[in-house]
Amino acid sequence: MALAIQADDVRAAAERIRPLARRTPVLTSAEFDRDAGVRVFFKCENLQRGGAFKIRGASNMILALPKESLERGIVTYSSGNHAQAVAIASKHVGAKATIVMPEDAPRSKMEATRSHGAHIVTYNRFTESREALAAGILKESGATLVPPFDHPMVMAGQGTAAMELLDETGPLDALITPAGGGGLLSGSATIAKAVCPDIRVFGSEPEGANDTALSMAAGERVTVAHPNTIADGLRSPSPGKLTFPVMQALVEKILLVTEDEIRAAARFLLLHLKIVAEPSGAVPVAAVLFHKLPPGIGSIGVVISGGNVDFEELVKY
Amino acid sequence: MALAIQADDVRAAAERIRPLARRTPVLTSAEFDRDAGVRVFFKCENLQRGGAFKIRGASNMILALPKESLERGIVTYSSGNHAQAVAIASKHVGAKATIVMPEDAPRSKMEATRSHGAHIVTYNRFTESREALAAGILKESGATLVPPFDHPMVMAGQGTAAMELLDETGPLDALITPAGGGGLLSGSATIAKAVCPDIRVFGSEPEGANDTALSMAAGERVTVAHPNTIADGLRSPSPGKLTFPVMQALVEKILLVTEDEIRAAARFLLLHLKIVAEPSGAVPVAAVLFHKLPPGIGSIGVVISGGNVDFEELVKY
Repeated sequence: MALAIQADDVRAAAERIRPLARRTPVLTSAEFDRDAGVRVFFKCENLQRGGAFKIRGASNMILALPKESLERGIVTYSSGNHAQAVAIASKHVGAKATIVMPEDAPRSKMEATRSHGAHIVTYNRFTESREALAAGILKESGATLVPPFDHPMVMAGQGTAAMELLDETGPLDALITPAGGGGLLSGSATIAKAVCPDIRVFGSEPEGANDTALSMAAGERVTVAHPNTIADGLRSPSPGKLTFPVMQALVEKILLVTEDEIRAAARFLLLHLKIVAEPSGAVPVAAVLFHKLPPGIGSIGVVISGGNVDFEELVKY
Repeated sequence: MALAIQADDVRAAAERIRPLARRTPVLTSAEFDRDAGVRVFFKCENLQRGGAFKIRGASNMILALPKESLERGIVTYSSGNHAQAVAIASKHVGAKATIVMPEDAPRSKMEATRSHGAHIVTYNRFTESREALAAGILKESGATLVPPFDHPMVMAGQGTAAMELLDETGPLDALITPAGGGGLLSGSATIAKAVCPDIRVFGSEPEGANDTALSMAAGERVTVAHPNTIADGLRSPSPGKLTFPVMQALVEKILLVTEDEIRAAARFLLLHLKIVAEPSGAVPVAAVLFHKLPPGIGSIGVVISGGNVDFEELVKY
């Protein structure tokens, strides 16, 4: 079966999303490199509009929708960052956005989404299905669903972060991103392998939300019913139907980190790089800092996926 | 009397410091602009090497020293960021650095300075004179003093941050930086007025360390014996001999902020821009956020001077 996206889809996305997504900075840290034992380039999607890479995929899909679709509105479900991205992109094109969010999503993410004019519908993530809730709204309204990861336009959009990173650094030995539903990882792997064929691509997950690692090992999509981690952006119970084959084809390994390692990495970013990463964004940083990489890697690009975290959580880093 | 530096000194510094200073990113925030009521461009010197703009001035002076001087070593006194900058630049050129630091300087700043191989001599800032201590060391060693602000090479180096900012944004209505000893502000004002003659330049200080504001009002350098503020980088007791005339000539006003306003601004940067500013770096941000600017300003560049803060202080923002 052909993979859902190709490198040219990512290149087209890079053009399309320009009005909405920032070209985020790439930072380095001599202290980090010394502790990690590898030269690291941090792609700072925590400094992206909406505080995460999600604006890339959401705007790639929404900016390509015909006027008739925009008039019937946009619907999505998300633990937060994708919600905010859809809200921002919908506002930009003048479309009404309805967002299905878990009732225990970080307050900052819920408030930010609301501040962009989106309508929020909450659900209990232990007893209700967000997909079913969204399906009901879609049926009533005729709106378009912009899924958080499992759509070619969303996957292609997310890959633009890695494209910008490699454009700035030149060839690297490796690339690592978080693995939630797999939108960021599959898009990143697709463009990275195209512009830098020898690059080794890794995903990273919390031990308590290791659905992608289990799926890669099993050779099929495995579900972790109730993922348990502070990395709220990585609690999706399984990789996507479209993202998983791309990861199988292009990703070498999913590296696992503990909750303590996530906090320590987030703290390192705060104190040495002077940037705020949310726990999900610190997961690949933790994988590198705590030496989870296989041998033979001298340089690596790390996508810090987001920075949306409540102050009460930040002080516990 | 001619001013200590001209715009061409800043331009020459920009070339000289290239091996050591980063071109830091310029960030924007729709949330901040909305709250402040003005379009703001943040020049992120907290993301600079050494965590502050100070590497610019220190490396401008040190990279211009003859080999004979480097062999006799470098001496400076500093509450922290300048110390770290001198340590980094000295290491780069292979010179021995001795740093006179207050014994109550933030631990992170002292550790970072030591990590770059510098020798640290501490003093009590309430009972001892750092200038006298440094003079003793200089006399013994024949080393070169790289003062924290009051030297044309240091002032010119610091101005490169504003130069990069305006190069990226184009003309702005105004520019604001913190006012400590005045190195950053005088250097910034010099280049800003040269490339953008109509720009209005402001300094900012904590109410408890308002020596520059008092000096501007008095028309002569006034000393605040024991400045009291969390903004440890702005505790210099008076503006410099060389920096003050530049500020008198080119700076419109020094804006004052309270300690609570500094913390609130630093917190805003953490939660909305996802960056860590130290209290001193948040001072000009506070001045803009809390509407201290005079009317008629639609766009402003804000130099966030640094991000070196202990975690224990950060959690109190």
